[in-house]
Amino acid sequence: MAPKWTQKPIKNILLDINGVLYESGEEHAIEGSVDAMKRLVEHGFEFCLVTNECTTPKRLLTEKLNAFGFDMITSDRIVSPAPTACEYIIQRGLRPRLHVWNDILEDFQPALDRLRESGAGEQPANCLVIGDVMSQLSRDFVDESLEIMLKCPEKPQIISLGAGRYYKDAGRLRLDTGAFAKAFAYALDIDEITCLGKPSAEFFGQALNVLSAKTTSNQKPPTYENTIMIGDDVVSDVGGAQAMGMRGFLVRTGKYKPSDETDRGVIPDDVFDNLYEATDKIISQVSHVV
Amino acid sequence: MAPKWTQKPIKNILLDINGVLYESGEEHAIEGSVDAMKRLVEHGFEFCLVTNECTTPKRLLTEKLNAFGFDMITSDRIVSPAPTACEYIIQRGLRPRLHVWNDILEDFQPALDRLRESGAGEQPANCLVIGDVMSQLSRDFVDESLEIMLKCPEKPQIISLGAGRYYKDAGRLRLDTGAFAKAFAYALDIDEITCLGKPSAEFFGQALNVLSAKTTSNQKPPTYENTIMIGDDVVSDVGGAQAMGMRGFLVRTGKYKPSDETDRGVIPDDVFDNLYEATDKIISQVSHVV
Repeated sequence: MAPKWTQKPIKNILLDINGVLYESGEEHAIEGSVDAMKRLVEHGFEFCLVTNECTTPKRLLTEKLNAFGFDMITSDRIVSPAPTACEYIIQRGLRPRLHVWNDILEDFQPALDRLRESGAGEQPANCLVIGDVMSQLSRDFVDESLEIMLKCPEKPQIISLGAGRYYKDAGRLRLDTGAFAKAFAYALDIDEITCLGKPSAEFFGQALNVLSAKTTSNQKPPTYENTIMIGDDVVSDVGGAQAMGMRGFLVRTGKYKPSDETDRGVIPDDVFDNLYEATDKIISQVSHVV
Repeated sequence: MAPKWTQKPIKNILLDINGVLYESGEEHAIEGSVDAMKRLVEHGFEFCLVTNECTTPKRLLTEKLNAFGFDMITSDRIVSPAPTACEYIIQRGLRPRLHVWNDILEDFQPALDRLRESGAGEQPANCLVIGDVMSQLSRDFVDESLEIMLKCPEKPQIISLGAGRYYKDAGRLRLDTGAFAKAFAYALDIDEITCLGKPSAEFFGQALNVLSAKTTSNQKPPTYENTIMIGDDVVSDVGGAQAMGMRGFLVRTGKYKPSDETDRGVIPDDVFDNLYEATDKIISQVSHVV
Protein backbone atom coordinates (compact mmCIF):
# COMPACT_ATOMS: atom_id res chain seq x y z
CA MET A 1 0.00 0.00 0.00
CA ALA A 2 1.28 3.47 -0.83
CA PRO A 3 2.17 5.53 2.24
CA LYS A 4 -0.24 8.25 3.33
CA TRP A 5 2.10 11.03 2.24
CA THR A 6 1.57 10.10 -1.41
CA GLN A 7 -2.07 11.25 -1.23
CA LYS A 8 -1.09 14.86 -1.97
CA PRO A 9 0.93 16.12 -4.96
CA ILE A 10 4.69 16.63 -4.55
CA LYS A 11 6.24 19.51 -6.44
CA ASN A 12 8.95 20.92 -4.16
CA ILE A 13 11.55 19.57 -1.80
CA LEU A 14 13.08 21.57 1.05
CA LEU A 15 16.28 20.10 2.44
CA ASP A 16 18.37 20.72 5.51
CA ILE A 17 22.10 20.87 4.70
CA ASN A 18 24.11 19.81 7.75
CA GLY A 19 23.44 16.14 8.58
CA VAL A 20 21.54 15.61 5.31
CA LEU A 21 23.93 16.61 2.49
CA TYR A 22 27.10 16.25 4.57
CA GLU A 23 28.08 15.48 8.14
CA SER A 24 29.37 18.30 10.34
CA GLY A 25 33.18 18.32 10.39
CA GLU A 26 33.54 15.93 7.41
CA GLU A 27 34.95 17.18 4.14
CA HIS A 28 32.78 15.13 1.78
CA ALA A 29 29.11 14.51 0.95
CA ILE A 30 27.10 11.78 2.69
CA GLU A 31 27.12 8.74 0.39
CA GLY A 32 24.36 8.93 -2.21
CA SER A 33 23.34 12.50 -1.44
CA VAL A 34 24.91 14.04 -4.58
CA ASP A 35 23.12 11.41 -6.73
CA ALA A 36 19.90 12.06 -4.83
CA MET A 37 20.05 15.78 -5.65
CA LYS A 38 20.86 15.09 -9.32
CA ARG A 39 17.89 12.75 -9.66
CA LEU A 40 15.52 15.22 -7.99
CA VAL A 41 16.49 17.85 -10.55
CA GLU A 42 16.26 15.41 -13.49
CA HIS A 43 12.74 14.45 -12.41
CA GLY A 44 11.60 18.05 -12.42
CA PHE A 45 11.34 18.79 -8.70
CA GLU A 46 12.14 22.26 -7.51
CA PHE A 47 14.28 22.44 -4.40
CA CYS A 48 15.54 24.86 -1.80
CA LEU A 49 18.06 24.34 1.00
CA VAL A 50 16.91 25.54 4.41
CA THR A 51 19.67 25.72 7.01
CA ASN A 52 20.11 27.28 10.45
CA GLU A 53 23.86 27.63 9.79
CA CYS A 54 24.86 31.04 11.12
CA THR A 55 28.65 30.98 11.27
CA THR A 56 29.48 30.40 7.58
CA PRO A 57 28.32 33.04 5.10
CA LYS A 58 26.11 31.93 2.20
CA ARG A 59 28.90 32.51 -0.32
CA LEU A 60 31.29 30.09 1.45
CA LEU A 61 28.52 27.58 2.12
CA THR A 62 27.74 27.47 -1.62
CA GLU A 63 31.43 27.04 -2.48
CA LYS A 64 31.70 24.19 0.03
CA LEU A 65 28.66 22.38 -1.39
CA ASN A 66 29.96 22.81 -4.94
CA ALA A 67 33.34 21.40 -3.90
CA PHE A 68 31.55 18.35 -2.42
CA GLY A 69 29.97 17.67 -5.86
CA PHE A 70 26.65 19.49 -5.45
CA ASP A 71 27.07 21.52 -8.64
CA MET A 72 23.30 21.99 -9.01
CA ILE A 73 23.32 24.19 -5.89
CA THR A 74 23.56 27.93 -6.46
CA SER A 75 23.60 30.52 -3.71
CA ASP A 76 20.05 31.66 -4.59
CA ARG A 77 18.69 28.26 -3.55
CA ILE A 78 19.98 28.55 0.01
CA VAL A 79 17.86 30.09 2.75
CA SER A 80 19.94 30.78 5.85
CA PRO A 81 19.23 32.94 8.91
CA ALA A 82 21.75 35.76 8.40
CA PRO A 83 20.65 36.88 4.88
CA THR A 84 17.03 36.46 5.99
CA ALA A 85 17.68 38.68 8.99
CA CYS A 86 19.49 41.17 6.76
CA GLU A 87 16.43 41.41 4.50
CA TYR A 88 14.15 41.71 7.55
CA ILE A 89 16.27 44.57 8.91
CA ILE A 90 16.26 46.43 5.59
CA GLN A 91 12.50 46.06 5.07
CA ARG A 92 11.74 47.45 8.54
CA GLY A 93 14.47 50.11 8.58
CA LEU A 94 15.97 48.70 11.80
CA ARG A 95 19.37 49.65 13.22
CA PRO A 96 21.10 46.45 14.30
CA ARG A 97 23.77 45.57 16.83
CA LEU A 98 25.23 42.37 15.36
CA HIS A 99 26.06 39.97 18.21
CA VAL A 100 27.26 37.36 15.69
CA TRP A 101 30.38 35.51 14.60
CA ASN A 102 32.71 37.81 12.63
CA ASP A 103 32.80 35.59 9.52
CA ILE A 104 29.05 35.98 9.01
CA LEU A 105 29.17 39.79 8.92
CA GLU A 106 29.34 39.78 5.10
CA ASP A 107 25.78 38.41 5.00
CA PHE A 108 24.66 41.63 6.75
CA GLN A 109 26.59 43.97 4.46
CA PRO A 110 23.51 45.13 2.48
CA ALA A 111 21.82 46.25 5.72
CA LEU A 112 24.99 47.98 6.95
CA ASP A 113 25.40 49.76 3.58
CA ARG A 114 21.77 50.92 3.69
CA LEU A 115 22.23 52.19 7.23
CA ARG A 116 25.35 54.16 6.30
CA GLU A 117 23.76 55.66 3.17
CA SER A 118 20.66 56.76 5.08
CA GLY A 119 22.76 58.46 7.77
CA ALA A 120 20.86 56.51 10.45
CA GLY A 121 24.03 54.66 11.44
CA GLU A 122 24.76 57.37 14.02
CA GLN A 123 21.55 56.72 15.92
CA PRO A 124 21.45 54.14 18.72
CA ALA A 125 20.80 50.55 17.66
CA ASN A 126 17.21 49.39 18.16
CA CYS A 127 17.59 45.72 17.36
CA LEU A 128 19.94 43.05 18.65
CA VAL A 129 20.77 40.25 16.21
CA ILE A 130 21.97 37.16 18.09
CA GLY A 131 23.83 34.33 16.41
CA ASP A 132 26.36 31.75 17.50
CA VAL A 133 29.44 33.79 18.47
CA MET A 134 31.67 30.72 19.06
CA SER A 135 35.08 31.60 20.54
CA GLN A 136 34.24 35.34 20.46
CA LEU A 137 32.15 34.73 23.58
CA SER A 138 33.70 36.83 26.34
CA ARG A 139 32.44 39.05 29.11
CA ASP A 140 33.34 42.22 27.21
CA PHE A 141 31.65 41.06 24.01
CA VAL A 142 28.45 40.17 25.85
CA ASP A 143 28.40 43.34 27.96
CA GLU A 144 29.12 45.57 24.96
CA SER A 145 25.97 44.20 23.29
CA LEU A 146 24.00 44.78 26.48
CA GLU A 147 25.23 48.36 26.90
CA ILE A 148 24.46 49.23 23.29
CA MET A 149 20.91 47.94 23.62
CA LEU A 150 20.31 49.69 26.95
CA LYS A 151 20.99 53.00 25.16
CA CYS A 152 18.01 52.39 22.85
CA PRO A 153 15.34 54.95 23.78
CA GLU A 154 12.47 52.63 22.80
CA LYS A 155 12.15 48.92 23.73
CA PRO A 156 14.60 47.17 21.36
CA GLN A 157 13.77 44.15 19.21
CA ILE A 158 15.66 40.86 19.50
CA ILE A 159 16.27 38.84 16.35
CA SER A 160 17.63 35.34 16.94
CA LEU A 161 19.28 33.41 14.11
CA GLY A 162 17.67 30.16 15.27
CA ALA A 163 15.99 28.80 18.39
CA GLY A 164 18.34 25.88 19.13
CA ARG A 165 18.99 24.80 22.73
CA TYR A 166 22.40 23.22 22.07
CA TYR A 167 24.30 21.63 19.21
CA LYS A 168 27.21 19.29 18.66
CA ASP A 169 30.39 20.63 17.09
CA ALA A 170 33.61 18.64 16.74
CA GLY A 171 32.46 16.30 19.49
CA ARG A 172 31.53 19.06 21.98
CA LEU A 173 28.03 20.02 23.05
CA ARG A 174 27.65 23.77 22.84
CA LEU A 175 25.05 26.24 24.03
CA ASP A 176 23.07 27.35 20.97
CA THR A 177 21.72 30.68 19.79
CA GLY A 178 18.26 30.20 21.30
CA ALA A 179 19.77 30.09 24.80
CA PHE A 180 21.77 33.31 24.39
CA ALA A 181 18.68 35.01 22.97
CA LYS A 182 16.81 34.08 26.17
CA ALA A 183 19.58 35.63 28.30
CA PHE A 184 19.43 38.97 26.49
CA ALA A 185 15.62 38.94 26.38
CA TYR A 186 15.55 38.57 30.17
CA ALA A 187 18.15 41.29 30.70
CA LEU A 188 16.33 43.73 28.40
CA ASP A 189 12.89 42.74 29.75
CA ILE A 190 11.64 41.72 26.30
CA ASP A 191 8.88 39.12 26.07
CA GLU A 192 9.06 38.23 22.39
CA ILE A 193 12.07 37.09 20.37
CA THR A 194 11.91 37.19 16.56
CA CYS A 195 13.41 33.90 15.42
CA LEU A 196 14.71 33.95 11.84
CA GLY A 197 15.67 30.31 11.46
CA LYS A 198 13.84 27.00 11.48
CA PRO A 199 11.21 26.37 12.76
CA SER A 200 9.88 29.94 12.40
CA ALA A 201 7.06 30.62 9.93
CA GLU A 202 8.91 33.71 8.64
CA PHE A 203 11.88 31.54 7.69
CA PHE A 204 9.92 28.80 5.92
CA GLY A 205 8.04 31.59 4.12
CA GLN A 206 11.38 32.80 2.75
CA ALA A 207 11.98 29.30 1.33
CA LEU A 208 8.61 29.42 -0.42
CA ASN A 209 9.60 32.77 -1.93
CA VAL A 210 12.72 31.16 -3.36
CA LEU A 211 10.66 28.34 -4.87
CA SER A 212 8.18 30.86 -6.32
CA ALA A 213 11.03 32.68 -8.07
CA LYS A 214 11.97 29.40 -9.79
CA THR A 215 8.42 28.66 -10.96
CA THR A 216 7.39 29.57 -14.50
CA SER A 217 3.87 30.76 -15.30
CA ASN A 218 2.78 27.42 -16.78
CA GLN A 219 3.76 25.51 -13.63
CA LYS A 220 1.74 24.90 -10.49
CA PRO A 221 2.69 27.53 -7.88
CA PRO A 222 4.58 26.30 -4.84
CA THR A 223 2.48 25.85 -1.70
CA TYR A 224 3.19 24.21 1.64
CA GLU A 225 0.66 21.55 0.54
CA ASN A 226 2.79 20.42 -2.41
CA THR A 227 6.13 20.62 -0.57
CA ILE A 228 8.11 18.08 1.44
CA MET A 229 10.82 18.97 3.98
CA ILE A 230 13.67 16.50 4.61
CA GLY A 231 15.88 16.91 7.68
CA ASP A 232 17.76 15.22 10.52
CA ASP A 233 16.18 17.33 13.31
CA VAL A 234 12.79 15.88 14.15
CA VAL A 235 11.60 18.94 16.06
CA SER A 236 12.96 21.84 14.03
CA ASP A 237 12.92 20.32 10.51
CA VAL A 238 10.07 17.79 10.61
CA GLY A 239 7.83 19.33 13.28
CA GLY A 240 8.47 22.85 11.97
CA ALA A 241 7.53 21.80 8.43
CA GLN A 242 4.41 19.98 9.56
CA ALA A 243 3.28 23.05 11.53
CA MET A 244 3.32 24.96 8.22
CA GLY A 245 1.23 22.30 6.44
CA MET A 246 4.15 20.56 4.72
CA ARG A 247 4.98 16.90 4.94
CA GLY A 248 8.13 16.25 6.98
CA PHE A 249 10.57 13.39 6.42
CA LEU A 250 13.24 12.40 8.93
CA VAL A 251 16.59 10.93 7.81
CA ARG A 252 18.73 8.68 10.01
CA THR A 253 21.91 10.70 9.36
CA GLY A 254 23.37 13.77 11.09
CA LYS A 255 22.16 14.37 14.62
CA TYR A 256 19.45 11.66 14.33
CA LYS A 257 18.99 9.41 17.41
CA PRO A 258 16.57 6.40 17.43
CA SER A 259 14.62 8.01 20.29
CA ASP A 260 13.79 10.90 17.91
CA GLU A 261 11.24 8.61 16.23
CA THR A 262 9.25 8.09 19.42
CA ASP A 263 10.14 10.53 22.20
CA ARG A 264 10.09 14.03 20.74
CA GLY A 265 6.37 14.60 20.28
CA VAL A 266 6.61 14.71 16.48
CA ILE A 267 5.52 11.89 14.15
CA PRO A 268 7.41 12.18 10.85
CA ASP A 269 5.42 11.49 7.67
CA ASP A 270 8.14 8.95 6.91
CA VAL A 271 11.64 8.02 8.08
CA PHE A 272 14.49 6.98 5.75
CA ASP A 273 18.04 5.80 6.29
CA ASN A 274 19.43 8.72 4.30
CA LEU A 275 18.67 11.31 1.64
CA TYR A 276 19.15 8.87 -1.26
CA GLU A 277 16.51 6.51 0.10
CA ALA A 278 14.11 9.41 0.75
CA THR A 279 14.39 10.88 -2.74
CA ASP A 280 14.27 7.42 -4.34
CA LYS A 281 10.89 6.84 -2.67
CA ILE A 282 9.65 10.29 -3.68
CA ILE A 283 10.65 9.72 -7.30
CA SER A 284 9.11 6.25 -7.42
CA GLN A 285 5.82 7.56 -5.98
CA VAL A 286 5.56 10.71 -8.05
CA SER A 287 3.88 9.04 -11.05
CA HIS A 288 0.98 8.02 -8.77
CA VAL A 289 0.30 11.48 -7.47
CA VAL A 290 1.05 14.19 -10.03
CA MET B 1 1.20 62.72 61.72
CA ALA B 2 3.26 59.59 62.15
CA PRO B 3 3.81 57.68 58.91
CA LYS B 4 1.73 54.54 58.32
CA TRP B 5 4.73 52.25 58.81
CA THR B 6 4.85 53.17 62.52
CA GLN B 7 1.55 51.37 63.12
CA LYS B 8 3.29 48.04 63.59
CA PRO B 9 6.13 47.22 66.02
CA ILE B 10 9.72 47.37 64.79
CA LYS B 11 12.12 44.86 66.24
CA ASN B 12 14.49 43.92 63.40
CA ILE B 13 16.20 45.68 60.52
CA LEU B 14 17.38 43.91 57.38
CA LEU B 15 19.88 45.91 55.32
CA ASP B 16 21.30 45.61 51.86
CA ILE B 17 25.08 46.16 51.82
CA ASN B 18 26.15 47.49 48.42
CA GLY B 19 24.66 50.96 47.82
CA VAL B 20 23.46 51.22 51.45
CA LEU B 21 26.56 50.71 53.64
CA TYR B 22 29.09 51.60 50.92
CA GLU B 23 29.10 52.45 47.22
CA SER B 24 30.36 49.85 44.74
CA GLY B 25 33.99 50.50 43.85
CA GLU B 26 34.58 52.98 46.72
CA GLU B 27 36.88 52.09 49.56
CA HIS B 28 34.95 53.76 52.39
CA ALA B 29 31.52 53.75 54.01
CA ILE B 30 28.70 56.02 52.83
CA GLU B 31 28.70 59.06 55.13
CA GLY B 32 26.67 58.43 58.26
CA SER B 33 26.15 54.72 57.68
CA VAL B 34 28.63 53.57 60.35
CA ASP B 35 26.93 55.86 62.90
CA ALA B 36 23.54 54.61 61.76
CA MET B 37 24.51 51.00 62.44
CA LYS B 38 25.98 51.90 65.84
CA ARG B 39 22.81 53.69 66.89
CA LEU B 40 20.61 50.78 65.76
CA VAL B 41 22.57 48.42 67.98
CA GLU B 42 22.57 50.86 70.93
CA HIS B 43 18.80 51.15 70.69
CA GLY B 44 18.37 47.38 70.88
CA PHE B 45 17.40 46.56 67.32
CA GLU B 46 18.53 43.24 65.91
CA PHE B 47 19.89 43.40 62.39
CA CYS B 48 20.96 41.18 59.54
CA LEU B 49 22.66 42.11 56.24
CA VAL B 50 21.02 40.65 53.16
CA THR B 51 23.10 40.90 50.00
CA ASN B 52 23.05 39.38 46.52
CA GLU B 53 26.86 39.72 46.33
CA CYS B 54 28.13 36.51 44.75
CA THR B 55 31.73 37.23 43.77
CA THR B 56 33.22 38.03 47.21
CA PRO B 57 33.13 35.27 49.82
CA LYS B 58 31.46 36.06 53.15
CA ARG B 59 34.80 36.02 54.97
CA LEU B 60 36.25 38.79 52.77
CA LEU B 61 33.00 40.76 52.77
CA THR B 62 33.08 40.80 56.58
CA GLU B 63 36.73 41.91 56.61
CA LYS B 64 35.92 44.71 54.17
CA LEU B 65 32.99 45.97 56.27
CA ASN B 66 35.11 45.85 59.43
CA ALA B 67 37.86 47.82 57.67
CA PHE B 68 35.28 50.47 56.69
CA GLY B 69 34.43 50.92 60.39
CA PHE B 70 31.45 48.55 60.71
CA ASP B 71 32.95 46.70 63.68
CA MET B 72 29.49 45.57 64.88
CA ILE B 73 29.20 43.33 61.79
CA THR B 74 30.22 39.71 62.22
CA SER B 75 30.12 37.11 59.50
CA ASP B 76 27.11 35.36 61.12
CA ARG B 77 25.00 38.45 60.49
CA ILE B 78 25.46 38.33 56.70
CA VAL B 79 23.09 36.37 54.49
CA SER B 80 24.52 36.02 50.98
CA PRO B 81 23.54 33.69 48.11
CA ALA B 82 26.58 31.38 48.01
CA PRO B 83 26.50 30.16 51.64
CA THR B 84 22.69 29.92 51.38
CA ALA B 85 23.05 27.77 48.25
CA CYS B 86 25.72 25.68 50.00
CA GLU B 87 23.32 24.97 52.88
CA TYR B 88 20.50 24.20 50.41
CA ILE B 89 22.74 21.73 48.55
CA ILE B 90 23.80 19.95 51.74
CA GLN B 91 20.23 19.69 53.08
CA ARG B 92 18.99 18.11 49.85
CA GLY B 93 22.07 15.96 49.16
CA LEU B 94 22.55 17.57 45.71
CA ARG B 95 25.67 17.18 43.55
CA PRO B 96 26.52 20.64 42.19
CA ARG B 97 28.37 21.92 39.15
CA LEU B 98 29.54 25.35 40.33
CA HIS B 99 29.29 27.80 37.42
CA VAL B 100 30.53 30.64 39.65
CA TRP B 101 33.45 33.02 40.07
CA ASN B 102 36.52 31.20 41.43
CA ASP B 103 36.90 33.47 44.49
CA ILE B 104 33.48 32.44 45.81
CA LEU B 105 34.29 28.71 45.80
CA GLU B 106 35.31 28.83 49.47
CA ASP B 107 31.66 29.54 50.39
CA PHE B 108 30.77 26.14 48.87
CA GLN B 109 33.53 24.21 50.64
CA PRO B 110 31.21 22.58 53.23
CA ALA B 111 29.08 21.11 50.40
CA LEU B 112 32.15 19.93 48.49
CA ASP B 113 33.59 18.32 51.63
CA ARG B 114 30.31 16.55 52.32
CA LEU B 115 30.16 15.29 48.75
CA ARG B 116 33.70 13.92 48.93
CA GLU B 117 33.13 12.25 52.29
CA SER B 118 29.92 10.57 51.09
CA GLY B 119 31.65 9.23 47.97
CA ALA B 120 28.90 10.76 45.80
CA GLY B 121 31.41 13.11 44.17
CA GLU B 122 32.02 10.51 41.46
CA GLN B 123 28.39 10.56 40.30
CA PRO B 124 27.23 13.04 37.64
CA ALA B 125 26.21 16.47 38.89
CA ASN B 126 22.46 16.97 39.23
CA CYS B 127 22.35 20.67 39.98
CA LEU B 128 23.86 23.69 38.27
CA VAL B 129 24.70 26.64 40.51
CA ILE B 130 24.90 29.86 38.49
CA GLY B 131 26.57 33.00 39.77
CA ASP B 132 28.30 35.95 38.20
CA VAL B 133 31.41 34.46 36.54
CA MET B 134 32.89 37.86 35.52
CA SER B 135 35.98 37.56 33.31
CA GLN B 136 35.86 33.74 33.50
CA LEU B 137 33.04 33.91 30.93
CA SER B 138 34.30 32.05 27.87
CA ARG B 139 32.86 29.58 25.40
CA ASP B 140 34.70 26.68 26.99
CA PHE B 141 33.60 27.59 30.50
CA VAL B 142 29.96 27.86 29.42
CA ASP B 143 30.00 24.69 27.31
CA GLU B 144 31.72 22.68 30.03
CA SER B 145 28.83 23.52 32.38
CA LEU B 146 26.34 22.53 29.69
CA GLU B 147 28.05 19.21 28.94
CA ILE B 148 28.27 18.30 32.62
CA MET B 149 24.55 18.93 33.09
CA LEU B 150 23.56 17.04 29.94
CA LYS B 151 25.19 13.95 31.47
CA CYS B 152 22.72 14.06 34.39
CA PRO B 153 20.40 11.06 34.03
CA GLU B 154 17.45 12.88 35.65
CA LYS B 155 16.31 16.45 34.89
CA PRO B 156 18.87 18.63 36.70
CA GLN B 157 18.01 21.52 39.03
CA ILE B 158 19.19 25.08 38.41
CA ILE B 159 20.11 27.24 41.40
CA SER B 160 20.66 30.89 40.59
CA LEU B 161 22.55 33.15 43.02
CA GLY B 162 20.18 36.04 42.30
CA ALA B 163 17.64 37.02 39.66
CA GLY B 164 19.21 40.30 38.47
CA ARG B 165 18.88 41.40 34.84
CA TYR B 166 22.01 43.55 34.77
CA TYR B 167 24.16 45.51 37.17
CA LYS B 168 26.70 48.33 37.13
CA ASP B 169 30.33 47.57 37.93
CA ALA B 170 33.15 50.11 37.61
CA GLY B 171 31.04 52.17 35.21
CA ARG B 172 30.06 49.25 32.93
CA LEU B 173 26.65 47.68 32.64
CA ARG B 174 26.99 43.92 32.85
CA LEU B 175 24.64 41.02 32.21
CA ASP B 176 23.61 39.64 35.60
CA THR B 177 23.16 36.14 37.00
CA GLY B 178 19.43 35.97 36.28
CA ALA B 179 20.09 36.29 32.54
CA PHE B 180 22.66 33.48 32.45
CA ALA B 181 20.30 31.29 34.47
CA LYS B 182 17.65 31.82 31.78
CA ALA B 183 20.09 30.73 29.05
CA PHE B 184 20.94 27.46 30.80
CA ALA B 185 17.31 26.82 31.75
CA TYR B 186 16.33 27.11 28.07
CA ALA B 187 19.19 24.86 26.91
CA LEU B 188 18.37 22.21 29.51
CA ASP B 189 14.60 22.54 28.98
CA ILE B 190 13.98 23.40 32.63
CA ASP B 191 10.93 25.48 33.52
CA GLU B 192 11.75 26.45 37.07
CA ILE B 193 14.88 28.14 38.42
CA THR B 194 15.58 28.08 42.18
CA CYS B 195 16.70 31.59 43.03
CA LEU B 196 18.74 31.84 46.24
CA GLY B 197 19.12 35.60 46.43
CA LYS B 198 16.78 38.52 46.90
CA PRO B 199 13.84 38.62 46.26
CA SER B 200 13.28 34.90 46.83
CA ALA B 201 11.26 33.77 49.85
CA GLU B 202 13.87 31.08 50.63
CA PHE B 203 16.52 33.78 50.96
CA PHE B 204 14.55 36.15 53.18
CA GLY B 205 13.66 33.10 55.27
CA GLN B 206 17.38 32.55 55.85
CA ALA B 207 17.63 36.13 57.17
CA LEU B 208 14.83 35.44 59.63
CA ASN B 209 16.70 32.34 60.82
CA VAL B 210 19.73 34.53 61.56
CA LEU B 211 17.59 36.94 63.54
CA SER B 212 15.99 34.05 65.47
CA ALA B 213 19.43 32.81 66.46
CA LYS B 214 20.13 36.24 68.02
CA THR B 215 16.86 36.36 69.96
CA THR B 216 16.83 35.36 73.62
CA SER B 217 13.88 33.55 75.18
CA ASN B 218 12.58 36.67 76.92
CA GLN B 219 12.46 38.69 73.69
CA LYS B 220 9.72 38.84 71.06
CA PRO B 221 10.50 36.37 68.27
CA PRO B 222 11.41 37.86 64.89
CA THR B 223 8.61 37.86 62.32
CA TYR B 224 8.25 39.52 58.93
CA GLU B 225 5.61 41.71 60.61
CA ASN B 226 8.10 43.27 63.05
CA THR B 227 10.91 43.64 60.52
CA ILE B 228 11.91 46.45 58.15
CA MET B 229 14.11 46.01 55.06
CA ILE B 230 16.25 48.93 53.85
CA GLY B 231 17.75 48.85 50.35
CA ASP B 232 18.62 50.80 47.20
CA ASP B 233 16.87 48.39 44.79
CA VAL B 234 13.18 49.20 44.77
CA VAL B 235 12.16 45.93 43.09
CA SER B 236 14.44 43.37 44.72
CA ASP B 237 14.90 44.92 48.18
CA VAL B 238 11.71 46.90 48.76
CA GLY B 239 9.24 44.93 46.62
CA GLY B 240 10.76 41.61 47.68
CA ALA B 241 10.47 42.53 51.37
CA GLN B 242 6.89 43.75 51.01
CA ALA B 243 5.92 40.50 49.29
CA MET B 244 7.03 38.69 52.46
CA GLY B 245 4.95 40.94 54.72
CA MET B 246 7.83 43.23 55.78
CA ARG B 247 7.92 46.98 55.46
CA GLY B 248 10.36 48.14 52.78
CA PHE B 249 12.33 51.41 52.84
CA LEU B 250 14.15 52.81 49.82
CA VAL B 251 17.34 54.88 50.20
CA ARG B 252 18.50 57.41 47.61
CA THR B 253 22.06 56.01 47.50
CA GLY B 254 23.62 53.22 45.42
CA LYS B 255 21.77 52.34 42.23
CA TYR B 256 18.76 54.52 43.16
CA LYS B 257 17.24 56.59 40.31
CA PRO B 258 14.39 59.11 40.88
CA SER B 259 12.18 57.11 38.48
CA ASP B 260 12.42 54.17 40.93
CA GLU B 261 9.94 56.03 43.17
CA THR B 262 7.24 56.10 40.50
CA ASP B 263 7.93 53.78 37.55
CA ARG B 264 8.82 50.36 38.93
CA GLY B 265 5.46 49.15 40.20
CA VAL B 266 6.54 49.20 43.87
CA ILE B 267 5.50 51.81 46.44
CA PRO B 268 8.09 51.94 49.25
CA ASP B 269 6.77 52.33 52.78
CA ASP B 270 9.10 55.30 52.98
CA VAL B 271 12.02 56.86 51.08
CA PHE B 272 15.08 58.41 52.73
CA ASP B 273 18.18 60.19 51.44
CA ASN B 274 20.46 57.62 53.04
CA LEU B 275 20.76 55.00 55.76
CA TYR B 276 21.44 57.55 58.49
CA GLU B 277 18.18 59.36 57.80
CA ALA B 278 16.28 56.06 57.65
CA THR B 279 17.58 54.74 60.97
CA ASP B 280 17.19 58.15 62.63
CA LYS B 281 13.49 58.07 61.74
CA ILE B 282 13.13 54.49 62.95
CA ILE B 283 14.80 55.30 66.28
CA SER B 284 12.72 58.45 66.79
CA GLN B 285 9.50 56.51 66.08
CA VAL B 286 10.28 53.44 68.12
CA SER B 287 9.04 54.82 71.43
CA HIS B 288 5.58 55.22 69.90
CA VAL B 289 5.31 51.64 68.79
CA VAL B 290 7.11 49.19 71.07
